[in-house]
Amino acid sequence: MILHGYFRSSAAWRVRIALQLKGLTVEHRYQHLRKGEQLSPEYLAINPQGLLPSLILDDGAVLTQSLAICEYLDEQYPEPSLRPSDPVARARVRAFAQVIACDIHPVQNLRVLKALQARGQTQDDANVWARDVIDGGFDALETLVTGQTGPFAFGDTPTLADICLVPQMANARRFGVDLRWPRLSAIEAACLALPAFADTHPDLQPDAE
Amino acid sequence: MILHGYFRSSAAWRVRIALQLKGLTVEHRYQHLRKGEQLSPEYLAINPQGLLPSLILDDGAVLTQSLAICEYLDEQYPEPSLRPSDPVARARVRAFAQVIACDIHPVQNLRVLKALQARGQTQDDANVWARDVIDGGFDALETLVTGQTGPFAFGDTPTLADICLVPQMANARRFGVDLRWPRLSAIEAACLALPAFADTHPDLQPDAE
Repeated sequence: MILHGYFRSSAAWRVRIALQLKGLTVEHRYQHLRKGEQLSPEYLAINPQGLLPSLILDDGAVLTQSLAICEYLDEQYPEPSLRPSDPVARARVRAFAQVIACDIHPVQNLRVLKALQARGQTQDDANVWARDVIDGGFDALETLVTGQTGPFAFGDTPTLADICLVPQMANARRFGVDLRWPRLSAIEAACLALPAFADTHPDLQPDAE
Repeated sequence: MILHGYFRSSAAWRVRIALQLKGLTVEHRYQHLRKGEQLSPEYLAINPQGLLPSLILDDGAVLTQSLAICEYLDEQYPEPSLRPSDPVARARVRAFAQVIACDIHPVQNLRVLKALQARGQTQDDANVWARDVIDGGFDALETLVTGQTGPFAFGDTPTLADICLVPQMANARRFGVDLRWPRLSAIEAACLALPAFADTHPDLQPDAE
């Protein structure tokens, strides 16, 4: 399999974590987002959104959207499971992941911040926007894991929830968000004690700058 | 079950479609987004994001995030299936749904348009923003279903992809997007021929204005 990513793409990091949790190795290719490489005709032929990540399977089939890719990997390589077997617990893991993947990350990503600046907002304005989006989202996430036990977001093993949280925490730090959510920070620490989360950190990727 | 929604919330519409496809009836409650009812302490106790929809199960458990709710319904009430059984096809259905649920809808919703206006953009500016987001997203969606056969986005029966597309087409129309994607329009027409899509249209809801 071939993963198209970028060291700082938090959506690509999610897939790197899932692959390593499953013990899968893939060939990595990189699209430099700040240089606009994701908008080359070659990459757009793979992923018409011009977004990362994309996973190319051994038969050439292309999968896009990080959560869809992670669920595919979890179905094809079931151990260790990234989704609880209880249906309500599974729905809550997915919802937690989607708070990040739908309502936080896409509203604070580079594409949106660039669009704000193209409309006359300063870099500082754009950073405040990103901080506001993350701050409000994290308040909700902290509530969603209130009462959960175990070191991870939902129990004793990492799920899609943790896979989305850790990269989003790194984004929060990059934008200078005051990380004032004790449960989210404890979950992040538990995750980063695992090689699947620590080794896949953006700073450790071959394309990191 | 109790569904908290709002006639014009496209995320709530997704769940209305899924429920009707499954033949399930629920009690409907409404949170008026423009009046800010979703931010009342009572509703925030149900959904800490203050977003719609929320589904309350018969035992009181609360599910949030429309796609997580739809997958839960599909798991608990498997017929008719909203997800293909082939793993790659299922990943593509989820990816198509997530293009809308992650990269289009949250970047053009009322919350973001209000934030733009709070930063000095006019209503017209905000509408142009929404049109740009939808336009770029629909280009990608049209490509993602190129080569697919059958009346629906992925085959002969509606899936999560169709459930997300139809409400997003209505949003596009509301913002004055030129609907220049023949395959997407054909899919929408096939869906709206079904009561599950037609009867759940925002204009037909009891809280419609």
